[in-house]
Amino acid sequence: MTETAIERGRRLSEQFSPGMEATLEARYGHLLPDMASSVVSYVYGQHYARPGLALRDRYLATIAALAAQGDQTAAQLKINIAAGLKAGLAQREIAEVIWQMALYGGLPASINALNTSIAVFSEQDALIG
Amino acid sequence: MTETAIERGRRLSEQFSPGMEATLEARYGHLLPDMASSVVSYVYGQHYARPGLALRDRYLATIAALAAQGDQTAAQLKINIAAGLKAGLAQREIAEVIWQMALYGGLPASINALNTSIAVFSEQDALIG
Amino acid sequence: MTETAIERGRRLSEQFSPGMEATLEARYGHLLPDMASSVVSYVYGQHYARPGLALRDRYLATIAALAAQGDQTAAQLKINIAAGLKAGLAQREIAEVIWQMALYGGLPASINALNTSIAVFSEQDALIG
Amino acid sequence: MTETAIERGRRLSEQFSPGMEATLEARYGHLLPDMASSVVSYVYGQHYARPGLALRDRYLATIAALAAQGDQTAAQLKINIAAGLKAGLAQREIAEVIWQMALYGGLPASINALNTSIAVFSEQDALIG
Amino acid sequence: MTETAIERGRRLSEQFSPGMEATLEARYGHLLPDMASSVVSYVYGQHYARPGLALRDRYLATIAALAAQGDQTAAQLKINIAAGLKAGLAQREIAEVIWQMALYGGLPASINALNTSIAVFSEQDALIG
Amino acid sequence: MTETAIERGRRLSEQFSPGMEATLEARYGHLLPDMASSVVSYVYGQHYARPGLALRDRYLATIAALAAQGDQTAAQLKINIAAGLKAGLAQREIAEVIWQMALYGGLPASINALNTSIAVFSEQDALIG
Repeated sequence: MTETAIERGRRLSEQFSPGMEATLEARYGHLLPDMASSVVSYVYGQHYARPGLALRDRYLATIAALAAQGDQTAAQLKINIAAGLKAGLAQREIAEVIWQMALYGGLPASINALNTSIAVFSEQDALIG
Repeated sequence: MTETAIERGRRLSEQFSPGMEATLEARYGHLLPDMASSVVSYVYGQHYARPGLALRDRYLATIAALAAQGDQTAAQLKINIAAGLKAGLAQREIAEVIWQMALYGGLPASINALNTSIAVFSEQDALIG
Repeated sequence: MTETAIERGRRLSEQFSPGMEATLEARYGHLLPDMASSVVSYVYGQHYARPGLALRDRYLATIAALAAQGDQTAAQLKINIAAGLKAGLAQREIAEVIWQMALYGGLPASINALNTSIAVFSEQDALIG
Repeated sequence: MTETAIERGRRLSEQFSPGMEATLEARYGHLLPDMASSVVSYVYGQHYARPGLALRDRYLATIAALAAQGDQTAAQLKINIAAGLKAGLAQREIAEVIWQMALYGGLPASINALNTSIAVFSEQDALIG
Repeated sequence: MTETAIERGRRLSEQFSPGMEATLEARYGHLLPDMASSVVSYVYGQHYARPGLALRDRYLATIAALAAQGDQTAAQLKINIAAGLKAGLAQREIAEVIWQMALYGGLPASINALNTSIAVFSEQDALIG
Repeated sequence: MTETAIERGRRLSEQFSPGMEATLEARYGHLLPDMASSVVSYVYGQHYARPGLALRDRYLATIAALAAQGDQTAAQLKINIAAGLKAGLAQREIAEVIWQMALYGGLPASINALNTSIAVFSEQDALIG
């Protein structure tokens, strides 16, 4: 039996960003009914779970785009760097891709995203260390 | 003996985007002396040639960022899709990463970039076919 | 019986932008299976069909956002202006909201979007006249 | 007798964002003489006070555009959400329009703007409650 | 007797971009009454005519910003490059400032703006030659 | 004997933003070997040190672009305002150029950048006073 979009989405989001649907529901559910499940179903079930591109590559691409968009997506960049590490990206690969974005999103965007990545790496290293 | 940045950059740009330095020099050299070699040395010699991230991944990241930035980078997106195919990306992978960017750069940016990718794929398929 | 997201989405997209799912499928289906239905289900079924904000207001908001984002979304702005007129917006209201966007997206973005709106209005007036 | 732009602007800005001209003058007047009155005259007198689009709709459009532009306009988004509530927008309508902007400005921009709206709503509810 | 904003604006816009107010009125006046005079009064009368920064510097800054914003402002970049040349900027200075914007708006934006500048320079040189 | 790009870059960056290369190396060197010298060589050696546009004008252009890009480049705007003052820009000129950017990057971006400039001016005045 085929998984539905929401089932695929929940499986994936719980694996890579555990607690996301519950957090969205708690924060926004009173204002926007069904928004949390809609995010999980669409973002994870209908994008990240698609075949045709490895999950590790999907996180690499997201990190690149958020880095190029600049510091205002720092909160989401943190979430996607953490998930990208789980999906198999190395810290060095993440730093390299962010630094390359200086070519496309400008130096300030890239430098600010590097600072965000270093913050995530420190938290991760503290957990492991 | 270690290659210099300009040597590395020329080797790489000639391999993936042949004729780029000559084109830049012909178009912009009369207004901006040294600009062409500066691009090749910096972009290819000091970014794309860096260790720590595979070239195929670098093109994937660039395609993602340009797709999220929207249609005004269509000319550069074409160049980087063509180079990305040479670096080992599949057409499907490129289409998938562009479509995923609807989440971060908005639907219009993603749709416009898909149109650009289809134009490049058609040219490539015509060459091969 | 409750409509599903894809049912709601199809009903709405056929009413306001007829032929959209078929067009998306024809253009992108060979590269991105399920993308067309995913757009209709998410954009129309899970956003535009939501209660809590009138459809006319949703199109007004989309026109505002696309105008502020600048000329690279011209194709999508045309589609949403045409749909907005069907949803009850007056030409004058659309022109006013685009012009107001000069305050937030800058003058060039606003002027370019005005040009796009005038093109849509001319087509519509030609149909009616 | 017709109001001038600065008269219309002052009437409107005092009604919806009381104290704005004085605040601008106090903060920026020493560096930029006449800037405060220029803002009030242009933004409120020559945009928001224009006929052809209801004030409630103008605030809806501004909230949409600022949400799509992302978190760096959070301070201005707060001001315009507060003014929009006075102009007749419901909290739910504001939340809906911001959430819809995920389609055009990307998910991170929309989520960050939702957080800003919730902060404004809490302040308002505290005043009323 | 002091000039009013609209008088200053008309004097300046006629000198640097002759015919602008009439063009705006002809294109947009039927949809947006008073918009043309509002642009001239605000943009030229209340910004470009301000003391404290030389007009040549104001055009340099505008060219920089439009170059960094990317190709979708090409029409406005052309107008401001032509005006900047009248205000005393050299072609070389304009090319240099656009090229520098590669650092802040990304390479694609800068390259596209260089192409726009070369188109304006060619027209100007044809007139002079 | 001609200076190399890295020599020119170091001379310039030390003069206008002293300690920058060391700071970059300390922060990012462990993740991105050679990044610090690459920035100094490219940004300062191959852009700011170019002939054809005065250094004071280059900083003016950078301040304009960063102001138009909005608040997320605040850290870099501070650095470039401080450097621009050393390169001969007056506080008033900087405030004027930032305010003018309201026309191109929108009002919120301009207002936020004015706040950043005032913070830098206060620090500078405290040092001098």
